[in-house]
Amino acid sequence: MKGTVIKISGSAFYWKSVDKSLPPLLRLFKNLAAKGERLVLVAGGGETARHYIASGRKLHVNESMLDDLGLRAARLNAELIVGGLGDLAYPVVPENMNQTAEAFATGRVVVVGGFHPGHSTNAVAALIAERVNANLFVNATDVDGVYTADPNKDSNAKRLKQVTVSELRRMFGDGEMRAGTYELLDLLAVNIIERSKIRTVIVKCEPQMIAKAIRGESVGTLVIA
Amino acid sequence: MKGTVIKISGSAFYWKSVDKSLPPLLRLFKNLAAKGERLVLVAGGGETARHYIASGRKLHVNESMLDDLGLRAARLNAELIVGGLGDLAYPVVPENMNQTAEAFATGRVVVVGGFHPGHSTNAVAALIAERVNANLFVNATDVDGVYTADPNKDSNAKRLKQVTVSELRRMFGDGEMRAGTYELLDLLAVNIIERSKIRTVIVKCEPQMIAKAIRGESVGTLVIA
Amino acid sequence: MKGTVIKISGSAFYWKSVDKSLPPLLRLFKNLAAKGERLVLVAGGGETARHYIASGRKLHVNESMLDDLGLRAARLNAELIVGGLGDLAYPVVPENMNQTAEAFATGRVVVVGGFHPGHSTNAVAALIAERVNANLFVNATDVDGVYTADPNKDSNAKRLKQVTVSELRRMFGDGEMRAGTYELLDLLAVNIIERSKIRTVIVKCEPQMIAKAIRGESVGTLVIA
Amino acid sequence: MKGTVIKISGSAFYWKSVDKSLPPLLRLFKNLAAKGERLVLVAGGGETARHYIASGRKLHVNESMLDDLGLRAARLNAELIVGGLGDLAYPVVPENMNQTAEAFATGRVVVVGGFHPGHSTNAVAALIAERVNANLFVNATDVDGVYTADPNKDSNAKRLKQVTVSELRRMFGDGEMRAGTYELLDLLAVNIIERSKIRTVIVKCEPQMIAKAIRGESVGTLVIA
Amino acid sequence: MKGTVIKISGSAFYWKSVDKSLPPLLRLFKNLAAKGERLVLVAGGGETARHYIASGRKLHVNESMLDDLGLRAARLNAELIVGGLGDLAYPVVPENMNQTAEAFATGRVVVVGGFHPGHSTNAVAALIAERVNANLFVNATDVDGVYTADPNKDSNAKRLKQVTVSELRRMFGDGEMRAGTYELLDLLAVNIIERSKIRTVIVKCEPQMIAKAIRGESVGTLVIA
Amino acid sequence: MKGTVIKISGSAFYWKSVDKSLPPLLRLFKNLAAKGERLVLVAGGGETARHYIASGRKLHVNESMLDDLGLRAARLNAELIVGGLGDLAYPVVPENMNQTAEAFATGRVVVVGGFHPGHSTNAVAALIAERVNANLFVNATDVDGVYTADPNKDSNAKRLKQVTVSELRRMFGDGEMRAGTYELLDLLAVNIIERSKIRTVIVKCEPQMIAKAIRGESVGTLVIA
Repeated sequence: MKGTVIKISGSAFYWKSVDKSLPPLLRLFKNLAAKGERLVLVAGGGETARHYIASGRKLHVNESMLDDLGLRAARLNAELIVGGLGDLAYPVVPENMNQTAEAFATGRVVVVGGFHPGHSTNAVAALIAERVNANLFVNATDVDGVYTADPNKDSNAKRLKQVTVSELRRMFGDGEMRAGTYELLDLLAVNIIERSKIRTVIVKCEPQMIAKAIRGESVGTLVIA
Repeated sequence: MKGTVIKISGSAFYWKSVDKSLPPLLRLFKNLAAKGERLVLVAGGGETARHYIASGRKLHVNESMLDDLGLRAARLNAELIVGGLGDLAYPVVPENMNQTAEAFATGRVVVVGGFHPGHSTNAVAALIAERVNANLFVNATDVDGVYTADPNKDSNAKRLKQVTVSELRRMFGDGEMRAGTYELLDLLAVNIIERSKIRTVIVKCEPQMIAKAIRGESVGTLVIA
Repeated sequence: MKGTVIKISGSAFYWKSVDKSLPPLLRLFKNLAAKGERLVLVAGGGETARHYIASGRKLHVNESMLDDLGLRAARLNAELIVGGLGDLAYPVVPENMNQTAEAFATGRVVVVGGFHPGHSTNAVAALIAERVNANLFVNATDVDGVYTADPNKDSNAKRLKQVTVSELRRMFGDGEMRAGTYELLDLLAVNIIERSKIRTVIVKCEPQMIAKAIRGESVGTLVIA
Repeated sequence: MKGTVIKISGSAFYWKSVDKSLPPLLRLFKNLAAKGERLVLVAGGGETARHYIASGRKLHVNESMLDDLGLRAARLNAELIVGGLGDLAYPVVPENMNQTAEAFATGRVVVVGGFHPGHSTNAVAALIAERVNANLFVNATDVDGVYTADPNKDSNAKRLKQVTVSELRRMFGDGEMRAGTYELLDLLAVNIIERSKIRTVIVKCEPQMIAKAIRGESVGTLVIA
Repeated sequence: MKGTVIKISGSAFYWKSVDKSLPPLLRLFKNLAAKGERLVLVAGGGETARHYIASGRKLHVNESMLDDLGLRAARLNAELIVGGLGDLAYPVVPENMNQTAEAFATGRVVVVGGFHPGHSTNAVAALIAERVNANLFVNATDVDGVYTADPNKDSNAKRLKQVTVSELRRMFGDGEMRAGTYELLDLLAVNIIERSKIRTVIVKCEPQMIAKAIRGESVGTLVIA
Repeated sequence: MKGTVIKISGSAFYWKSVDKSLPPLLRLFKNLAAKGERLVLVAGGGETARHYIASGRKLHVNESMLDDLGLRAARLNAELIVGGLGDLAYPVVPENMNQTAEAFATGRVVVVGGFHPGHSTNAVAALIAERVNANLFVNATDVDGVYTADPNKDSNAKRLKQVTVSELRRMFGDGEMRAGTYELLDLLAVNIIERSKIRTVIVKCEPQMIAKAIRGESVGTLVIA
């Protein structure tokens, strides 16, 4: 009973464009499910998470509760997908790992937001891939892969076709960690990918890109454990 | 062990102004708690609820799950208050009536969002008032009381100093009910107020107005059971 | 994955006759399940609910807890059906909407009592129909439909073949609401039926009547949203 | 933080007389709580439990679910006491041992029904006494103590002032065990009393008798571990 | 939907030999599941339970919490089996009867440890057999059946091919009960077997013996209800 | 309501010496609690965790479930402390952050094991410190502080009186992460300490050392955020 875990970028839930960005993704997920693909979808917190975290920070809410606001926002995004998938989806958004494993065992598409303070949704996705013995983790994100530098700042930045976990660790290892600022793959996610040797592809959050990654075509950046 | 239930208008959580609208309310709640007032705060879903419900409706999510999106949004708002109150607040947002009763028994300020599909946050507030034997339900809302007509549409509309539940029922009785469109007090809230004879005041959601209502001064509209 | 929600009148659980009234209903439910009908059964609280609510009221228990007594009683009745259906039934009585949706997803017959104070079991049934996208809500009750007047008091009362939600609302709109006195369809149930356009039939709680309603034959009173 | 566990006979909840039998007991519990006595009350299932178990048996419900019906009935009785005690009581009926320990830690009067199939409410009471380190277990029952024979059948039967657990075990050891037929103290309860050396008094379920047992006066039958 | 409940002796989890004793058992369970056998496995607490109970007793932990330590240890053993069975197993260890019934309804192999203080894992196994209407309870234990005397102490002790519950009750009826000292079948287990007439076989915890018991061959000791 | 979070080294729970190592720690915690210190204790998994993880790995259990075995083992250790502290402790071991916050709000000593796969108990301790706004995190461990090199391998290794989080990150940043091999402070713990500026002291797990750290004396290694 293999499966695929897809982290859906929080950017797919921008308030202004969510009614345009979600339907094509929902069609993809329905098609994949119809073909018998076992899916777990992990929704990012996106704009809603950032807003609540920023508001909370102004009110001096502590970082742990800011994380909690972020994961509640991600669950809102997750429930939007559950509702959009109708009977294909497990009808409730699981809130921890055991609930996720139980939901996955039913064979339906499982959709989660965050689990616990201190975990990015990327780490949650990697942890789920590990628990349900998924054979693929697609990290569908804002950018179309890992670059040698920030492509928005450096025009010489090049996309890497593949990257090792050690290289990833060097890249992200000294970044400061504050609620809402997790990027691409944080260190916990990288460690999980490494220890369980989870095939991981980082792609842009677009239906065709995700579909390609699942079909095993070369796309985005492959992470080598 | 008497107490006060305050429904906080979703408008207190407008994204653009939440960092200005919440701090004065938080100061009020801290002052009240310091004086020994037993409080349950019920956060409305506001802008976030409306957005997710509207987005869900475009994705053909059913009304029951739209309600669920609305109450999850209200819980996000509730958690912002929990974080802002710090140690005065019960540290977790209760998700049903029994959890609320348990939290109230600790003596801390309890903050909730919604509970269950089919319940407006107004009805939730009335139901809590009933369960914890509160002696006052302050419905802090967008308008400064019940009017003879919609004050935004009819310049002759007059604020009523008091109104009976029967009159309220006539006013709201034939309104259509869709997720996110609950107004002032819906029928379930009115029925609860009536059956348990809960002293209810509808005021504008401003600290001074709420404070006056709690001190027993004439403000807004008093609902007579 | 369509389904049918059946509200079972609390009268099916009269202590003196429950061993006669339940077996024919259980046979019907088994037959329906064998034919692939997806069922959610909502047990009314009946005599047990009324007794505990009346006893509680004499002890000055508040209305919210009286509702709670009523829904606990309804769960007892629900469990009797679960036990009687054996392996066809989901083995546990769900206690809220999410648990019900999870149970429904298994394909077994789901049996619930009440959920939350402030909700009649009628409203619970309508809310479930909405959540699981049921195509029919059969309200199996004491009377064989909606009458122009109380048939027990007025010999000229006539059964209506169909009734609109607006008419229902007028009929029940000004009734007082106390724990244990909910009738036929209360206002919350009517509102839910209307907003989700749930095909609803009110019939007498007898196996043949319920079977007819499910086969789409004209029986009892059809509620038009 | 010592405490007393009182098992309240199911007979205190007879439908016809509950409004007469409970008030004096409630007054006693309020008085004891006012004096700082730490109380856990365990309600028997009584008439309601017996009815549902008998009905379930006719419907061929298995013994495990019959036990479940019995403990749900006991929780209904428990909630009647919670409601009657108002703010003195922990506001929710705990459903397992850990919840009971958490409730007891709040200092309020805790009221439970049953916990788990296979446990009589007597055994539940003994197990709670053990967990919360209670210094007294008062088993308030139908009879005024342990007799040398069944006093209803044998006019020579004599009440024992005290009895050892070994003697109790001999008396009850060969009784058949079916849901709803647990008597006085079943073997599990006796074993618990013995292993934790819980001071146990069996008295008639009347306020004065319970009060005497708590004051340490000679009443009913003392069980010697 | 018949099934088999197998109590796995805690001795299968000896620290030094668990990596040798479990694999053959796991192979058996996989084979049985592949043939469509519906299984519930109940892991004993074994060495880990005994260690924590002994340590707790030295720290003056009360008997109820010692039981809790024991059942937590049993759950650790249970999770080892869940992990070893992979996708054949229900992915989470249920912690009470209702969760177990829900897990069993999925058709996967369910693995549990203990449930509640006061219950041996033997009693838990019997209670589950009752709840899920199992047609066989295999008690896989340290010894190869019930003997006329302790075979370790009395060389004339003979294994009984079958034994009645009354005889079992006489044998164990006067044993003292302390956390961690439950033997073979305690009285609660015996009572459950009797009241639900569960076919019960006591065998040595070895794959071939368990397989024989399931195939209905004469092995170990048959308990006659 | 400030507080102190103490991570207790798994080595305090060695099977052979736990009855000698725990009592002095329990005395310290009782003394601290008596002085009004607000405590959260986080038990490491120690020998039991290592055994179950090693056994699970031999059975090809996946890393996520190995983590789960580890945290269940840590909860066993935690419960030993709960039992040993008696009424001073919150009576149940919380299993996630919200439960911990609720328990902490009661004012009792809270004892936890692990929470979630992917979190070391060190990270759990840091996350709790953050959530409950603790003013001190004492990491009581096998060694008496952070050294310039492994003191067991390098006789020139020197204990650092203080260390910055950046230095810690460099030291541990490239370590492989497998269930059961978390050391001192892993990266997640370091990140949490940094983002919330939690005063952190690493000391040897001995009562006097912990006491000194709490009194603010120079001991072990101070981590500078």
